[in-house]
Amino acid sequence: MAKLSKLYILLDINYYPMMDDFVSSIVSGDRRSIAKAISMIENEDPIVDDILSKLYPITGNAFVVGITGPPGTGKSTLINSLIENYRKLDKKIGVLAIDPSSPITGGSLLGDRLRMSTHNLDPNVYIRSMSSGNRSGGLSQYTRRSLSILDASGLDLIIVETVGAGQSEVDILKITDAVVIVLMPELGDDIQIYKAGLMEIGDIFVVNKSDLEGSDQMYTKILSASKLKNDNWMPQVIKTESINGTGIDELIASINEREKFINNSSSRSSIKENKIQNEILAVIIDDLSKTFSDKIKNHSDFQSLVQQVLSKKMDPEQAASILKEKLEIE
Amino acid sequence: MAKLSKLYILLDINYYPMMDDFVSSIVSGDRRSIAKAISMIENEDPIVDDILSKLYPITGNAFVVGITGPPGTGKSTLINSLIENYRKLDKKIGVLAIDPSSPITGGSLLGDRLRMSTHNLDPNVYIRSMSSGNRSGGLSQYTRRSLSILDASGLDLIIVETVGAGQSEVDILKITDAVVIVLMPELGDDIQIYKAGLMEIGDIFVVNKSDLEGSDQMYTKILSASKLKNDNWMPQVIKTESINGTGIDELIASINEREKFINNSSSRSSIKENKIQNEILAVIIDDLSKTFSDKIKNHSDFQSLVQQVLSKKMDPEQAASILKEKLEIE
Repeated sequence: MAKLSKLYILLDINYYPMMDDFVSSIVSGDRRSIAKAISMIENEDPIVDDILSKLYPITGNAFVVGITGPPGTGKSTLINSLIENYRKLDKKIGVLAIDPSSPITGGSLLGDRLRMSTHNLDPNVYIRSMSSGNRSGGLSQYTRRSLSILDASGLDLIIVETVGAGQSEVDILKITDAVVIVLMPELGDDIQIYKAGLMEIGDIFVVNKSDLEGSDQMYTKILSASKLKNDNWMPQVIKTESINGTGIDELIASINEREKFINNSSSRSSIKENKIQNEILAVIIDDLSKTFSDKIKNHSDFQSLVQQVLSKKMDPEQAASILKEKLEIE
Repeated sequence: MAKLSKLYILLDINYYPMMDDFVSSIVSGDRRSIAKAISMIENEDPIVDDILSKLYPITGNAFVVGITGPPGTGKSTLINSLIENYRKLDKKIGVLAIDPSSPITGGSLLGDRLRMSTHNLDPNVYIRSMSSGNRSGGLSQYTRRSLSILDASGLDLIIVETVGAGQSEVDILKITDAVVIVLMPELGDDIQIYKAGLMEIGDIFVVNKSDLEGSDQMYTKILSASKLKNDNWMPQVIKTESINGTGIDELIASINEREKFINNSSSRSSIKENKIQNEILAVIIDDLSKTFSDKIKNHSDFQSLVQQVLSKKMDPEQAASILKEKLEIE
């Protein structure tokens, strides 16, 4: 598809009609077209820019839930339970599993695991993993673009699953509508630090595996640390046992409440504006980082400055200042 | 100190002699001066630039070990065991605990926990947590600068502890000499994804809590996934039980081997060059992100572009392109 479209550009014949077909099939929910479009995003195919521009006006109908938490808290089982319960409500569900995988393992671990579940046979459930692989592009940009594709394809709810509390995960979660943090008792002391990194962005905290000892203390701790967020939402804490479905209905009720809050809130437009501001900033900063990394590495003075730092004639920040001046960055 | 130095600049009297005193006291290992300098880094006090430039020529003697892993794997107990064993070898040790904490919790959780140990009474052990707090600066830049202070203060070994596998953690680990990834059996399936994100940067993998079931399988899995790294180092896998000290000697032997490898390797200078290149790039990209975030947010067209995206007249990437053109970013 990508190759064909490129050819059509060169020939300047029938290009738009063909792309319109592709766009229409995405909008109709055709799984192969959705998969192709997301692969084009991962491969940084320039054609996809036009597709996204065409799709953008019809996005905004899917509610996007980010789900994150450290390894071992049972996120996948929880997501499987969520899918099951949402399907009973006849909702169309998408799952985007963010996989910060290395070229060594080849990626797609999260997605594979979910795909092995029975839900993949359900035409109203679309599961896909996103990986940055060897590409220079930011995972959050790929995610945002893929969310537009899924949103335009008519899904009611899209779950974005991430592992970890790093900056790239936080950037991804910032573009979702509801952030669910999955924790569990007995994670040891440094769950405190993990949680701290996510406390500000979490809308709903789940204490999963709540049959384990210490779940009440964890519940109380999170509840007492909760504060009204910038958007005036009060974070909620839910206890679940995803293995037997306990608490899943409460979690869905909480996600619904967050959705109502966003839709009815007087601050609705400011929440949306804030999200758009973050998106525009992310696109520009991401591009800038790529452009300038290349510029710096290829600058004729770079190697000699590295040598001067190596021989301790200057420190890395002095070298950086000199390069910034040469590149005319204020 | 910061305030006084600023005053001396204004008066232009005795400024350098005074700064030289401060620099000397850091070099002599004075704990209060080290603490002050690191606080100045966290507060982005411009005076610290000169201090770092003066210290840089005498850095490079400390071996820097990055230790990371998901919550609950027992990193703190492991680090306490390492400190104990290194102290028996009469090594001076520093620990920099990287804390991606939120303004809500106030941070310093990692450091506090380590500080509560008996080691804090030992004058040859310096424990400090680094937090980005509300500041815009990158944690990796603060870390790099603080490492220079600790290195110049005469420590033999500095441990940098992080939680999580996000990009900011990876950036921090890239500026260390040896990266130790702490895992444990029974972390559930998504340890695969967590590990995948770190597989390329890990020099030593620790299977901690190796008395638990599944440790042999995990050991074998990691070993079979290990590949020669770019710098020609073959990652090692060590089984430990940090709670009773089992395997700590093997871990120290492995860290020593990595140190010898870096010092004796024919690729020594290329390893160091690579590290310096990463440092210079990180400084510039970090500055760029800050500068342009502000420029974009304050640009007179920003709000109207956000409104146009909000009303779906364009998508965020079109808005980004327009802003990039206006800001004259190629």
